[in-house]
Amino acid sequence: MSDPRPIGFFDSGVGGLTVLREAQRRLPGESTIYIGDSARHPYGTRSDAEVLDYAIELADALVARDVKAIVIACNTATSVALAHLRQRHPAIPFIGVVRPGAAAAVLATRTGRIGVIATEATVRSGAYFAAIKDQNPAVQVEARAASALVPLIEAGDLSSPQLVEAVRSTLATFKGLPAAAKIDTLLLGCTHFPLIRNLIASELGESIAVVDSAAAAAATLQEVISVNHLDAPGSTRGTAADPGAAGHSAPARAEVLPVHQLFTTGAVAGFSGLADRLFGDRVMEVEQISVRR
Amino acid sequence: MSDPRPIGFFDSGVGGLTVLREAQRRLPGESTIYIGDSARHPYGTRSDAEVLDYAIELADALVARDVKAIVIACNTATSVALAHLRQRHPAIPFIGVVRPGAAAAVLATRTGRIGVIATEATVRSGAYFAAIKDQNPAVQVEARAASALVPLIEAGDLSSPQLVEAVRSTLATFKGLPAAAKIDTLLLGCTHFPLIRNLIASELGESIAVVDSAAAAAATLQEVISVNHLDAPGSTRGTAADPGAAGHSAPARAEVLPVHQLFTTGAVAGFSGLADRLFGDRVMEVEQISVRR
Repeated sequence: MSDPRPIGFFDSGVGGLTVLREAQRRLPGESTIYIGDSARHPYGTRSDAEVLDYAIELADALVARDVKAIVIACNTATSVALAHLRQRHPAIPFIGVVRPGAAAAVLATRTGRIGVIATEATVRSGAYFAAIKDQNPAVQVEARAASALVPLIEAGDLSSPQLVEAVRSTLATFKGLPAAAKIDTLLLGCTHFPLIRNLIASELGESIAVVDSAAAAAATLQEVISVNHLDAPGSTRGTAADPGAAGHSAPARAEVLPVHQLFTTGAVAGFSGLADRLFGDRVMEVEQISVRR
Repeated sequence: MSDPRPIGFFDSGVGGLTVLREAQRRLPGESTIYIGDSARHPYGTRSDAEVLDYAIELADALVARDVKAIVIACNTATSVALAHLRQRHPAIPFIGVVRPGAAAAVLATRTGRIGVIATEATVRSGAYFAAIKDQNPAVQVEARAASALVPLIEAGDLSSPQLVEAVRSTLATFKGLPAAAKIDTLLLGCTHFPLIRNLIASELGESIAVVDSAAAAAATLQEVISVNHLDAPGSTRGTAADPGAAGHSAPARAEVLPVHQLFTTGAVAGFSGLADRLFGDRVMEVEQISVRR
């Protein structure tokens, strides 16, 4: 059994490209379609009703393009819309970023105290609190809203003094905790944050592990594709231990080569700039797609 | 590190005794406190607000008795109240029965189609749909309300013609599914149902696996106690493969012998009758405890 259809991804903007990059590394034989909703970015400070409305529109657009699975590569959209989208499209497997990130953080902590930084909407939903407690109910969770970082990253700022100061003031609240409540693991609960992972890690210091919901979601996608026999025909899977394996066993027939499509609802130029930095020398054409405003 | 405090359990009535029995088998060194809310049984046809109110009262009663963890041994109370209780008592690990049951069913299915029987309130909550999709989003879920069975079982009826007929009509809806939608696994999404597991299994036939959320929850409890170093001092763990191990390595000091307390909010006589059938020759004294009515 195999399935040649592409895997769909959507996000409020460029953040989900961190999930896409990791997914392409793990599943080099799979075609992908990505929609970044930059025109309506950011989601994290919007109402739940607005986010749900946008998520439905983007998921429907991916279903209309005949995807075999959909990754909600956005924490805010996952926490607000995942349950609804699964009911709306019962035949499509939806993978969110919240539960994989929570599972990875629970595996990483030794002291049982995890910090989470996410958007206001994600923190308000309690999705990470619930997902971490489901993994291990004895683990303590300290969640903080860090919405101010997201528009800076979306605009391509990965290192300005303004960004560094915003990171510092966000993380300061974890440093002020009493000794018995100090975290040993920080979960990046927004797919924009892996783009500034090094900045966050150096600000925290080496005693705190940084865990990334984007990488965890890609690992979950790989497992979902595999256990449900949804692999593309002739595809091989790369692994973290052997990322070059795909190159040695590339599919022999031209018709199974994967196709990657990037769409943005906003300006192509800004989106392309960050995509180029993420995907390096691989040419990723970006097209514009229209949505209701 | 060890923790001599008891583990708390509560249910709408006698159903949760199936979880308690399995937990005592797996964790023979642990003390337990069980509260069955028979006076307000059944929960499954009540409003969410009522169930939440009762669950808070019972959890608070267990916390007041200094338990180290609480098992919500009732699917209805888990689906309605688990998230709230975790927020209310952040230092207490709460274990529900829904997620462990969902995980066990996803492991059991080969065709990716799972049936669930549960109370009206549990089906209405969508808790099993969500928990199964979280485990594997490609699995299809057919949930059916079977509230009529619960009062019969609670009253001690495990085999009357009336019960057999109620089981038959509940399961008939799964037999009427089109071939492409036929289930290969049935999840017992109410802790009362393992008490009539053999009746259900024989009615379904051998082609459908029957999975039990009560046994799955006990396995999860064992893992939570172990990974968080909450084991009672001197305790040993029994396992499914070696249930007699505890007898050979019983604690040497009398003060660490486990203590088991059973409380009911209803009549002691009916509760004791079923407890005696479940726990066999082990004497389990039942006391009455009062609640708001």
